[in-house]
Amino acid sequence: MEPATPSIFYEAYIFDLDGTVYLGEALLPTAGETITSLRSLNKRTVFLSNNPTHTRHDYAAKLTRLGLPTPPEDIINSSVVMVDFLRRRLPQARLFVIGEAPLQAELAAAGFELVDEAGWVDAVIASFDRTFVYRKLQIAFDAIRAGARFFATNADRYCPVPGGGEPDAAAIIAAIEACTSTKVEAVVGKPSPWMAEAILGLLNLPPDRCLMTGDRLETDVQMGLNAGMAAALTLTGA
Amino acid sequence: MEPATPSIFYEAYIFDLDGTVYLGEALLPTAGETITSLRSLNKRTVFLSNNPTHTRHDYAAKLTRLGLPTPPEDIINSSVVMVDFLRRRLPQARLFVIGEAPLQAELAAAGFELVDEAGWVDAVIASFDRTFVYRKLQIAFDAIRAGARFFATNADRYCPVPGGGEPDAAAIIAAIEACTSTKVEAVVGKPSPWMAEAILGLLNLPPDRCLMTGDRLETDVQMGLNAGMAAALTLTGA
Repeated sequence: MEPATPSIFYEAYIFDLDGTVYLGEALLPTAGETITSLRSLNKRTVFLSNNPTHTRHDYAAKLTRLGLPTPPEDIINSSVVMVDFLRRRLPQARLFVIGEAPLQAELAAAGFELVDEAGWVDAVIASFDRTFVYRKLQIAFDAIRAGARFFATNADRYCPVPGGGEPDAAAIIAAIEACTSTKVEAVVGKPSPWMAEAILGLLNLPPDRCLMTGDRLETDVQMGLNAGMAAALTLTGA
Repeated sequence: MEPATPSIFYEAYIFDLDGTVYLGEALLPTAGETITSLRSLNKRTVFLSNNPTHTRHDYAAKLTRLGLPTPPEDIINSSVVMVDFLRRRLPQARLFVIGEAPLQAELAAAGFELVDEAGWVDAVIASFDRTFVYRKLQIAFDAIRAGARFFATNADRYCPVPGGGEPDAAAIIAAIEACTSTKVEAVVGKPSPWMAEAILGLLNLPPDRCLMTGDRLETDVQMGLNAGMAAALTLTGA
């Protein structure tokens, strides 16, 4: 069977990564061919992830390794959006980050001071953190009760891994919300408008010229539609 | 002013501890005198705590030190109730306990096998745990996704300490619920019916002969009223 040729083309194609382009270390069926075809037609391809435990350089290297050479600039994840979000709103903020080393490094590289003394914290950043310990919960509790703001990179319940999953940022956010009785103010990852803004800023295109493709209705498709893009759901992922 | 003499007496007086009888290492005003007077009138006095990080022996020693000699048997906390709850329902259960050493010791002493291999876990017990680390969240996640039951000792948001608070079991429960999308099945501490049952079993009295006194409407007073006891609110605590 010949693959169907679409009757409509967009200027830019935005892809979720995990569960849409690849799963673990393997491209999903037809994902590579689709992206390569679109590029050969001079369409722009960019990639999104909610996962802040890798940098855009890590994702670029992975796509390149899987046969889809991609520059880091064509990748946006929730830590990139968090840096942008904080730069615009709280450029001088001292941050207490519940997150892994790559997120901490990106925030520090953007000029934010990272602190862990509750009284000094302007904002608590909750994220996917496999190095989470009670002491971090205590600092977040003390800081938020003393007036610190409370933001999160993403709200995924768990991160799929071969054979199971790893508790993701939703668990960290819920723990802090439960003990402080304070709701997170903003989650910048999908399906937030801040993530959509970051993509459209990168593409410099009106949303109706873009197609968002992902494997989760409540994040990928929701965000695309909210932002005025076309959206497509793959049935390959979560 | 003379203290008022009550016009009604009960057979038994049940007191919450933290914020009702004492705060930190000091008795609250009139608490000691009230309890001593009731005892001199041959009324039964028993004590309750949701906090599973101390044993009933610890609480008895503390009350005795503060001038209110009390045997361990007259104290019920959420770990005592958890032991009873599990003995009746899941006597052979292998448990993964997210809790501190005293809770683990009480469950082990009651004959339960404590395990931390997710595939072996029959029930996850969530509790107040200042030794909480991500690995425990991962084990709870894997165990519950594989079918383990999910119970908690108490659902307090934070434990008041001088000058602030410590994130309590509500944070642990919320983290597990958020990543597993599974609600805790039972929380045995106040205001649960299991805690009320444990007290009435200890007292061997009908509920309307008992007065429950505490500093929290949503735990102490709620539990007393639900169980058919009279209930009084002190304004000394949380």
